[in-house]
Amino acid sequence: MEIEKLKQLLEQVKSGQIDVDAALEQLRRLPYENLDGFAQLDHHRTLRNGFPEVVLGQGKQPEQVAAIVCRLAEHSDKVLVTRVDQAMADIVCTEMPDVVYKSLPRLLVLDRSKPIEKIPGILVVTAGTADMPVAEEAAVTAELMNNSVERMYDVGVAGIHRLLGQVENLWRARVIIVVAGMDGALPSVIGGLVSVPVIAVPTSVGYGASFNGLAPLLTMLNSCAAGVGVVNIDNGFGAAVLASRINQSGQ
Amino acid sequence: MEIEKLKQLLEQVKSGQIDVDAALEQLRRLPYENLDGFAQLDHHRTLRNGFPEVVLGQGKQPEQVAAIVCRLAEHSDKVLVTRVDQAMADIVCTEMPDVVYKSLPRLLVLDRSKPIEKIPGILVVTAGTADMPVAEEAAVTAELMNNSVERMYDVGVAGIHRLLGQVENLWRARVIIVVAGMDGALPSVIGGLVSVPVIAVPTSVGYGASFNGLAPLLTMLNSCAAGVGVVNIDNGFGAAVLASRINQSGQ
Amino acid sequence: MEIEKLKQLLEQVKSGQIDVDAALEQLRRLPYENLDGFAQLDHHRTLRNGFPEVVLGQGKQPEQVAAIVCRLAEHSDKVLVTRVDQAMADIVCTEMPDVVYKSLPRLLVLDRSKPIEKIPGILVVTAGTADMPVAEEAAVTAELMNNSVERMYDVGVAGIHRLLGQVENLWRARVIIVVAGMDGALPSVIGGLVSVPVIAVPTSVGYGASFNGLAPLLTMLNSCAAGVGVVNIDNGFGAAVLASRINQSGQ
Amino acid sequence: MEIEKLKQLLEQVKSGQIDVDAALEQLRRLPYENLDGFAQLDHHRTLRNGFPEVVLGQGKQPEQVAAIVCRLAEHSDKVLVTRVDQAMADIVCTEMPDVVYKSLPRLLVLDRSKPIEKIPGILVVTAGTADMPVAEEAAVTAELMNNSVERMYDVGVAGIHRLLGQVENLWRARVIIVVAGMDGALPSVIGGLVSVPVIAVPTSVGYGASFNGLAPLLTMLNSCAAGVGVVNIDNGFGAAVLASRINQSGQ
Amino acid sequence: MEIEKLKQLLEQVKSGQIDVDAALEQLRRLPYENLDGFAQLDHHRTLRNGFPEVVLGQGKQPEQVAAIVCRLAEHSDKVLVTRVDQAMADIVCTEMPDVVYKSLPRLLVLDRSKPIEKIPGILVVTAGTADMPVAEEAAVTAELMNNSVERMYDVGVAGIHRLLGQVENLWRARVIIVVAGMDGALPSVIGGLVSVPVIAVPTSVGYGASFNGLAPLLTMLNSCAAGVGVVNIDNGFGAAVLASRINQSGQ
Amino acid sequence: MEIEKLKQLLEQVKSGQIDVDAALEQLRRLPYENLDGFAQLDHHRTLRNGFPEVVLGQGKQPEQVAAIVCRLAEHSDKVLVTRVDQAMADIVCTEMPDVVYKSLPRLLVLDRSKPIEKIPGILVVTAGTADMPVAEEAAVTAELMNNSVERMYDVGVAGIHRLLGQVENLWRARVIIVVAGMDGALPSVIGGLVSVPVIAVPTSVGYGASFNGLAPLLTMLNSCAAGVGVVNIDNGFGAAVLASRINQSGQ
Amino acid sequence: MEIEKLKQLLEQVKSGQIDVDAALEQLRRLPYENLDGFAQLDHHRTLRNGFPEVVLGQGKQPEQVAAIVCRLAEHSDKVLVTRVDQAMADIVCTEMPDVVYKSLPRLLVLDRSKPIEKIPGILVVTAGTADMPVAEEAAVTAELMNNSVERMYDVGVAGIHRLLGQVENLWRARVIIVVAGMDGALPSVIGGLVSVPVIAVPTSVGYGASFNGLAPLLTMLNSCAAGVGVVNIDNGFGAAVLASRINQSGQ
Amino acid sequence: MEIEKLKQLLEQVKSGQIDVDAALEQLRRLPYENLDGFAQLDHHRTLRNGFPEVVLGQGKQPEQVAAIVCRLAEHSDKVLVTRVDQAMADIVCTEMPDVVYKSLPRLLVLDRSKPIEKIPGILVVTAGTADMPVAEEAAVTAELMNNSVERMYDVGVAGIHRLLGQVENLWRARVIIVVAGMDGALPSVIGGLVSVPVIAVPTSVGYGASFNGLAPLLTMLNSCAAGVGVVNIDNGFGAAVLASRINQSGQ
Repeated sequence: MEIEKLKQLLEQVKSGQIDVDAALEQLRRLPYENLDGFAQLDHHRTLRNGFPEVVLGQGKQPEQVAAIVCRLAEHSDKVLVTRVDQAMADIVCTEMPDVVYKSLPRLLVLDRSKPIEKIPGILVVTAGTADMPVAEEAAVTAELMNNSVERMYDVGVAGIHRLLGQVENLWRARVIIVVAGMDGALPSVIGGLVSVPVIAVPTSVGYGASFNGLAPLLTMLNSCAAGVGVVNIDNGFGAAVLASRINQSGQ
Repeated sequence: MEIEKLKQLLEQVKSGQIDVDAALEQLRRLPYENLDGFAQLDHHRTLRNGFPEVVLGQGKQPEQVAAIVCRLAEHSDKVLVTRVDQAMADIVCTEMPDVVYKSLPRLLVLDRSKPIEKIPGILVVTAGTADMPVAEEAAVTAELMNNSVERMYDVGVAGIHRLLGQVENLWRARVIIVVAGMDGALPSVIGGLVSVPVIAVPTSVGYGASFNGLAPLLTMLNSCAAGVGVVNIDNGFGAAVLASRINQSGQ
Repeated sequence: MEIEKLKQLLEQVKSGQIDVDAALEQLRRLPYENLDGFAQLDHHRTLRNGFPEVVLGQGKQPEQVAAIVCRLAEHSDKVLVTRVDQAMADIVCTEMPDVVYKSLPRLLVLDRSKPIEKIPGILVVTAGTADMPVAEEAAVTAELMNNSVERMYDVGVAGIHRLLGQVENLWRARVIIVVAGMDGALPSVIGGLVSVPVIAVPTSVGYGASFNGLAPLLTMLNSCAAGVGVVNIDNGFGAAVLASRINQSGQ
Repeated sequence: MEIEKLKQLLEQVKSGQIDVDAALEQLRRLPYENLDGFAQLDHHRTLRNGFPEVVLGQGKQPEQVAAIVCRLAEHSDKVLVTRVDQAMADIVCTEMPDVVYKSLPRLLVLDRSKPIEKIPGILVVTAGTADMPVAEEAAVTAELMNNSVERMYDVGVAGIHRLLGQVENLWRARVIIVVAGMDGALPSVIGGLVSVPVIAVPTSVGYGASFNGLAPLLTMLNSCAAGVGVVNIDNGFGAAVLASRINQSGQ
Repeated sequence: MEIEKLKQLLEQVKSGQIDVDAALEQLRRLPYENLDGFAQLDHHRTLRNGFPEVVLGQGKQPEQVAAIVCRLAEHSDKVLVTRVDQAMADIVCTEMPDVVYKSLPRLLVLDRSKPIEKIPGILVVTAGTADMPVAEEAAVTAELMNNSVERMYDVGVAGIHRLLGQVENLWRARVIIVVAGMDGALPSVIGGLVSVPVIAVPTSVGYGASFNGLAPLLTMLNSCAAGVGVVNIDNGFGAAVLASRINQSGQ
Repeated sequence: MEIEKLKQLLEQVKSGQIDVDAALEQLRRLPYENLDGFAQLDHHRTLRNGFPEVVLGQGKQPEQVAAIVCRLAEHSDKVLVTRVDQAMADIVCTEMPDVVYKSLPRLLVLDRSKPIEKIPGILVVTAGTADMPVAEEAAVTAELMNNSVERMYDVGVAGIHRLLGQVENLWRARVIIVVAGMDGALPSVIGGLVSVPVIAVPTSVGYGASFNGLAPLLTMLNSCAAGVGVVNIDNGFGAAVLASRINQSGQ
Repeated sequence: MEIEKLKQLLEQVKSGQIDVDAALEQLRRLPYENLDGFAQLDHHRTLRNGFPEVVLGQGKQPEQVAAIVCRLAEHSDKVLVTRVDQAMADIVCTEMPDVVYKSLPRLLVLDRSKPIEKIPGILVVTAGTADMPVAEEAAVTAELMNNSVERMYDVGVAGIHRLLGQVENLWRARVIIVVAGMDGALPSVIGGLVSVPVIAVPTSVGYGASFNGLAPLLTMLNSCAAGVGVVNIDNGFGAAVLASRINQSGQ
Repeated sequence: MEIEKLKQLLEQVKSGQIDVDAALEQLRRLPYENLDGFAQLDHHRTLRNGFPEVVLGQGKQPEQVAAIVCRLAEHSDKVLVTRVDQAMADIVCTEMPDVVYKSLPRLLVLDRSKPIEKIPGILVVTAGTADMPVAEEAAVTAELMNNSVERMYDVGVAGIHRLLGQVENLWRARVIIVVAGMDGALPSVIGGLVSVPVIAVPTSVGYGASFNGLAPLLTMLNSCAAGVGVVNIDNGFGAAVLASRINQSGQ
């Protein structure tokens, strides 16, 4: 191991086996060559995330995914695979029986961790029922990252009373993920009703001039309510990571 | 005049000066050749519009515009020039002292018509104060077309209580023009609150990913509230014409 | 029920069981908390629309749609599902035998309402025969909303005499829905021939630089005829709602 | 004032001057009609934001802005005007001598508040020196919202050692605003080095295929590091509001 | 038939059965109402085109196409259906045995006309072999319109000697259709080598930043060789119609 | 001169001064090395075009343009400079007094050729008066190329009777250039009325969703009338070259 | 053969069978007419490339590809077919048993050349494992062109230590191909770490606002590290050709 | 200086002033904290580039640029500022008299280095004269990086003989920079004529559907000639850096 090598080098300097200039030369090469050995960076990340391993299922072979999940499961008690269709899920679950497939958000979840108390504060809101798969991708991801998640679905702005009727729930949240396709107007309205961070997720729900989610993406980037951060189209996972970081900030 | 010529032809047929086949041949050429002579189409349009003459000022020379307005004023008691800057206005108003320049909506208005009772029913709403020039272009145009117009400005969705506090005014209108830039979300909310036609006007207010009004345009086309018709970016004039046609429908 | 609670509160104020300040405090929370209880908004909408329930079929599971239609049918005598393919239709119609599938416009229609006299005034025009599915989506929707609908199909501008030959029909309408793909030029021509509101529906008919309907969409937004409102690509449903609102305006 | 009216109503109920049903009828109309009177929403927002009044300077007349700032200064001890050029600043500062113009971020700032201890935790990073105006818009805004802000400028990924040499500073932050134009790659690298929320701000710095900031915007939305929220191009202000909400979350 | 009605009217005028004013009134309505009856326009077009009937197969049902072809075949001795896949072709050819399917250009051709001498002058050139389906759509269409067509395929600019080796063939043509995907550079080179009209057809051949033909389309529109007219992506048919009009111009 | 060199080589072969293999070796290098010497290509082009020299003024310095025009005027009796503003024109005309500046189409024209009889057949049509600068660029260019040109301006489709009233003029043309901005619908209508080639020129006239001419460009590429070739936005010059080639085809 | 003809001509000049002027006339036509005969260009290319024959499989029929490969194999000992799916591969390999199918990069490779020592210097790097198919297309192509290739996969910028840990490998390369989808940030970082040419290949890996590879394409074009050349999305083949040309430059 | 500190640490270890574990702890923090101290990376880069300091002038204040150039001139004998207008140049040159302004490529150049022999091999080619500013930016940059540069201007593909007449010059180059706007077709033709690396630079020369250089950019990315690397629109500087790296590769 690299730390050992470095220690040896220092011992050799101490004992005079190697002179200072030669040691200096070796050390100069350290920053890039031996970074893996130090690996503070990576450990640091693991420790603070509490969530080390995620796989993007889309575009991979089912067998590949199964193999990756097996290997990851050796080091980590939580593995998440996103964008998984039923066929891929069947193959992976056959090989790894304690992996669970959630078909709505198309997630494969392995969770062997001990139950701990979840941290409350994340609310996931959708404009329509068709936005639910993306919303659930966010919600399940956030839960796996030790957050407890509330859901408020189908409160789009074309029936604004549905949202206003639950405004107290908005006010309870510490961070709100708002998932919307079509006009993508919901984050602007919610952003004006609360003072906590709002994460906007455009979805590809819609047709025609939605251009596969471009319309709500632009809407959200131009939100007239300040304090709204936007993630990629259909990226429930990314929204959950950001929300979890915010929710666990200061913990 | 063409009608006269046609009458002569029929008289000649009657009197036997021309035989039926020769007359038939002349008539076959009528639809395209002599359309100007008939001009039902155009008169028809004038009668029903009550608003014959509009000039797009942008891209023309001030002198050209002055000359056009003079000529139009000979036939029509109302002339409207849109997208006029102060320099053009100064030149036109010098030549035509009864032309009025409205600087906010950048309109030149000539109105020598007799005062008549305006038809109520049009409400113009804006999301922000920066949308007012486009809104006023719509409002002044609609007024010139014999509609009385109510205004409700600066009620954007990021402060939804401003809109909801005036919902009764929304319910009084027969047709609503909603003007919004940035996220363009307001028509979706209003479309869900009313059952009258909503005309959405995206504006180029904003910056960055607004892409000069593309963002609110797409938002409005994807409105999750049905019953919303969209016009071109910053096209307050076009919205007013459509609103006036709706408001005066059945009159 | 919320109204009851509010009544109780007032009775308590009246009887002195609760003092004015405490009651005031409770009332302050009303606007958002208890909106569902008041629900004027929603009832208002139902009453005036005469058409409460629409489902977007696309992107849902057939079983989901069947369940939703069943539930809606308990409260409403009319249900419409849009963007339904044959497979979904078969499943829904098996469970709900009085639901009718219209394959051209891909609509599922449940209509248990009593026959009433339809309101005349809506004309649906297409540029080509390939635009008919979208046109029929508009026409069937408008009919279900108690309008009688006339159709004028395949009168695109490349054979302008086809349109001009039926110009009297255009002049009879109170509102005209114009459906066109490819160059999307028809609404400009019709907009110049009539003085009633024109609703333009771009379709994804075409290929190459049509970019799935972007070309006719832009054409229609830039129409040199004023008084044209545009809806989303292929959105026959939305055009019908807007047309119905215009047609029934003032009724 | 509206609260007074409501109190009167309750007093009348108590005294029997008005019966319960009539009072009920008046109350039913409350949610929309009298919302301004209640204004919980707005007060609520003011209290938690500690930052009530912002004006977008761009597109307004200098005199308008001066008038708005005067009016706002009557109610609020902090006013911020964004996107202000030198000419506008001169006019406003002449009328309001305690308004300060910051030329790099093009901000007008009025701050009459008492000095309080700022909340540490926000780090603003830029890829290049040309991104500094946007970064300073973010930093000054965040400071005005009672956050203390650290700056790390000109650490773009093409000289990755500049960033890595200061990684400890990254690890100290509670939320990081990353401002970058051109390739917009910096948020991805930083997002992988930290576990706190990252707010990415694309800038219009660049030329050609940057398409006025579209390139870095897309880069950031597609960041391969999760936990990155994106705001509009050049929107330093919006990033600051989001960062402040995150930084003060739980306070 | 309408001409008959018009003749009757004139006869009635002649005989005094109807007076001149009543006849005038009927004639005023002619231009739009009875245009079909006159149909000069349409006959005119047929006569000069020598090619009256074309059907876009794409997006239609095979049975629909079969029915349309049958009906058209009653009036016209040439029918062309474009964008036809094998399945549609099988069904149509079963019902109409003298219809021929050309699989490369995906055309259905019915040609019962008497052989006449073709007019020489059209040359169809492609950049690559993958552009051949579009090129053949053009060539077969032009042949059906009584032009004889030469072909020069696979002479793209990356091997410029292939084109230059056949430059005499270019110089023989009266009009040249150039079909190219990917970089779409060929029309610029050919446009500089000849002085006859060049019709450029971009194809969707390519991948990635070709964006389904957008790249060659823009290339061709920006051709540094003047005298190049561009048609829609993959529109071999349209290019052929234009080329035929040019080739037969003055005949 | 190169031809001389080649002749010398052959003389040397004939006289035996150089053997066949050495001559062969020299000849192998000919096609690329000495092409200028042969220059058939270029002469060929000059002869057939009758119009050798055009300069794009935009983006050049006035002095540069003056120098280029001077040099070209030594070899050619006709020089055309396109996209010239008044300042550039003043400088060039001072140095070259027989150069004429046409301000509407922004062209500098030098024509010292002997008057010859122009070839009739080109018609230039515009949708609006704002399209005239582009139309005149086309018309003047075509005239300089020895065509006589007819003009039909301001016959846009929103007043279709204006066009139909002059349909005989359309039928007289051998090739028609149609110039239109905004919706760009006019070429589709004209394409359906005539059987001669139509060249469509989109213009940047318009605003908002015209996107500087993208809207009419797409409209024209998707024209439902076949036989329409499109050139670049505002490219009146290119349209004229193509029209001239068509008009003089077969001469 | 053409050289022979040219030789004969010279012999005839020498012997006096043909005079100099007649020979001159024949030679004048050479550059275009007989280029194939000379074909220096093409031979030249073959000699220096060492890699004459490549076929784009996509969009062709398997039988066509098999036939093309057979024909090419007669003249060339190396044939490469790109973008080949399994079905096409099966058919081709059945007919040509010594063709090898590489399924990851979807390449068909025929290599009957004698083993020679490969030229070291090319390094292929990917951001993620999903970029491997494109990377392998590059690597296998480069190997077939006589380069030895090193691979460094899955070192994306979100885990920058992975890349930095192998920086010595970067420094060993003479040219580096960097393959990345999503944010496409890796070339910017690598471009800053090395001083050799970097070829950036955007991939269509990603979803949503990746817009099929547009996002990384723009990122790479805007790279803040100079010295980066970009090829088309997913174009591993093109990157390999460029890298090979660079790597073998000066050999 | 950091190297000194590291040396001290090792001396202390050697002398026993600090024990191995404490030293180890300090070293673990090195990679990120003290990277500047090591700075191999940066020195490495300087050594191999021979060209350390470049400033993007655009978007900076003249005074800022003057100050930056002064500071850089203390460490480096060559400084280059790109995208500089005349006004900025005047100010900088007043303060730094040995800075030279090249107005065509808009470059400020400071070169106090001793004359050395330039490395031949780079050829810069343009399609038109309007592409010269970008070409000169490339050429001057490459010369400053110790390359000798040949130029071949105005050889666009619409007059292909101009290029072919100089093909020997193409064949002499070791790397070719091809600069082209409008259709951007030149790199495809040159890429097919040579076997050395080609760097394509799209320019914003053109109008309309050039979309400020998007058209030639896409053309070049889709080049049917392999071996072409593309840089940003108008990025002559970047092309030069890449060309210099290739040209000096292996030196």
